[in-house]
Amino acid sequence: MDEYAQAGYGDVEIGFGSKPAILVIDFQLSHTSGDYPFGGRPLALRALDNTLRLLERARPMGVPVAVCYTSYQNPSEMPYWKIKAVREHYLPGDPAGDLDPRVADPAHDLVVRKTGPSMFFETKVQPYLVKHAVDTVIVTGVNTSGCVRATVIDSFQRGYRTIVPEDCVGDVEDGPHRDNLRDVGRRYADIVDADRVLAYLARNRAVA
Amino acid sequence: MDEYAQAGYGDVEIGFGSKPAILVIDFQLSHTSGDYPFGGRPLALRALDNTLRLLERARPMGVPVAVCYTSYQNPSEMPYWKIKAVREHYLPGDPAGDLDPRVADPAHDLVVRKTGPSMFFETKVQPYLVKHAVDTVIVTGVNTSGCVRATVIDSFQRGYRTIVPEDCVGDVEDGPHRDNLRDVGRRYADIVDADRVLAYLARNRAVA
Amino acid sequence: MDEYAQAGYGDVEIGFGSKPAILVIDFQLSHTSGDYPFGGRPLALRALDNTLRLLERARPMGVPVAVCYTSYQNPSEMPYWKIKAVREHYLPGDPAGDLDPRVADPAHDLVVRKTGPSMFFETKVQPYLVKHAVDTVIVTGVNTSGCVRATVIDSFQRGYRTIVPEDCVGDVEDGPHRDNLRDVGRRYADIVDADRVLAYLARNRAVA
Amino acid sequence: MDEYAQAGYGDVEIGFGSKPAILVIDFQLSHTSGDYPFGGRPLALRALDNTLRLLERARPMGVPVAVCYTSYQNPSEMPYWKIKAVREHYLPGDPAGDLDPRVADPAHDLVVRKTGPSMFFETKVQPYLVKHAVDTVIVTGVNTSGCVRATVIDSFQRGYRTIVPEDCVGDVEDGPHRDNLRDVGRRYADIVDADRVLAYLARNRAVA
Repeated sequence: MDEYAQAGYGDVEIGFGSKPAILVIDFQLSHTSGDYPFGGRPLALRALDNTLRLLERARPMGVPVAVCYTSYQNPSEMPYWKIKAVREHYLPGDPAGDLDPRVADPAHDLVVRKTGPSMFFETKVQPYLVKHAVDTVIVTGVNTSGCVRATVIDSFQRGYRTIVPEDCVGDVEDGPHRDNLRDVGRRYADIVDADRVLAYLARNRAVA
Repeated sequence: MDEYAQAGYGDVEIGFGSKPAILVIDFQLSHTSGDYPFGGRPLALRALDNTLRLLERARPMGVPVAVCYTSYQNPSEMPYWKIKAVREHYLPGDPAGDLDPRVADPAHDLVVRKTGPSMFFETKVQPYLVKHAVDTVIVTGVNTSGCVRATVIDSFQRGYRTIVPEDCVGDVEDGPHRDNLRDVGRRYADIVDADRVLAYLARNRAVA
Repeated sequence: MDEYAQAGYGDVEIGFGSKPAILVIDFQLSHTSGDYPFGGRPLALRALDNTLRLLERARPMGVPVAVCYTSYQNPSEMPYWKIKAVREHYLPGDPAGDLDPRVADPAHDLVVRKTGPSMFFETKVQPYLVKHAVDTVIVTGVNTSGCVRATVIDSFQRGYRTIVPEDCVGDVEDGPHRDNLRDVGRRYADIVDADRVLAYLARNRAVA
Repeated sequence: MDEYAQAGYGDVEIGFGSKPAILVIDFQLSHTSGDYPFGGRPLALRALDNTLRLLERARPMGVPVAVCYTSYQNPSEMPYWKIKAVREHYLPGDPAGDLDPRVADPAHDLVVRKTGPSMFFETKVQPYLVKHAVDTVIVTGVNTSGCVRATVIDSFQRGYRTIVPEDCVGDVEDGPHRDNLRDVGRRYADIVDADRVLAYLARNRAVA
């Protein structure tokens, strides 16, 4: 037992509420295609597969879905990024920033451009959750140690029950992936898997 | 060289700007006193010492300082915390939530109560930075793997040059402390030490 | 018929939802007592009476209530106010800034300090609404042409059904009171009265 | 002398700072062309002419400019608007929502889509102001009694010196235009004209 557990970190599960939504973070070609500096990593591709499976079942149940990508109109809109690939590729005309075509369903989803790590930061995500009276946010996408972590924090502090299916989030390497699930699982979110989310969605629909 | 470095993470330093401010996170008795479940840890005490040293020099130079603590009026104001000590101690009348008396100087600092991990979340911190035309945010406090990480993300995405003196931030254990400095140092912030911040403040004052 | 109506402004009612909350703005002594430069005006006192009547009925029904006041720790925390009384009186130790003792019930309400006109701006109000799954925001308080207007805009743009009982909001003079109800009633909010809100609350409770 | 002036409203000028930016609100065809329900009104066209004149001089001086328009991906992204034309026209494929082609210079300006009345609400405007260390926000566009009012409030409460050149903002009718300039001029912003802004910009550049 580590010192965090001894101090009472992660002592309870949050649990699902009654109105879920799914957030899908940065499945852009830069991450899903091996053509780019940090793209095509196994954890990211696994996350994409499981997220697509989740979305395919969730949309017909009427679960709200919001999908984001990171992109900049010009360098003056950028925060002070220390990642060369972000500074150079997420600009107009570069296909690295394009959403993987399998991810968004414009007829159902809200699609937002974001400029910071958090999907909530200066985007239309929270008003969309309010309009749908959402109480439970399921976070999917990449990278666990970057934008997923930031979005989980923001979902938590805004008052939502926050759920991370760990096979729906991915990263460049396994170490930071696990480190960040550990940190957020102790504090802000339940770490589950896609099957547990699907079981919940089916059960929740039966009740509603 | 890890895969993140190969992919261009952490390839540049951000550097200091010309108008710094110091943020000081959650040096409450819960963290600085051994009387509480996660208090009195060596890294937190080291962070407190170095932060006090930094503040003592920075205030006479006119550097804006904002100090926060986490506290709740009642449980309905709380996000869904998974940390028993937070749920039980950060309520009115419990001294665990009190700021360590050495930290804030009410004649100089802005003192804010926060309810989420990020010191920017629904607090008066950003308007205060705007009033002082700040471009550089120096983040100190505890815990590196919790509120420090969240505040660094928010400082970064709001457009500030973000600097973390690693001997001014602390945690329960060394592992998560280092993991989080690694993650943010690759992406969002320069990881320096208190002496380097002090050298910058002296130099910057000479210019101004 | 004015040109706004011809252009389709105010063509529909928004209507109440199923989870209301009541926001109560700035019933501080500065407004409710004749001892202060803009206090004790008839419209403000009428608004206070009707709001107290509303709150007395709403609290036992379990309707969430959030109450705010405007105050500053020191001048550097203030935005650039053009109102002398705000600049001079809303500082520590001045009773002008104290909430009228009849307004808040700490055992039931969330009480927040605000620094801008909008009750949502950098306060804990929205996380509180999220925790209670609120979809309908009833705005009361003073002044219609200042903080009420700002709060209505923010409630609207955040995605809430926004309702203004016009006898629960007040101002220094009748002209700006009516002008602002006209502007927001055309765009963002239904203008009703306290009795209509009470009838809705009774009906809504019967359904729930 | 009205009761507001007696109570100390509008007793001082805020004054210009040293780093201005210009915000340009909603000069979409819906407002600038007579083909739409509330378009082509004299005050809006006057505002457009003066704003274009201002921008033409300000851009070569390096003044940051942000331009916005209101638009929705689909009805579920919309707040509860009471304006039929907004609900029906600001959707994909409808030219009513297009920016007037004379307004934005993509090589210089930040262009943002907004979904609420305030140009700051969940947009990239504030990070852009932070990146440019702006202290003074000059607000132009339409309508004075809608999005201009909302943006002025947000600029003020975020801590910026806020300036409204009254010949650069417009509305459907003159009454609400004047009522709103009166309300914000008493509290949050200096009401000037385009020539005074131009004189300031020239003077400020000489100093810088």
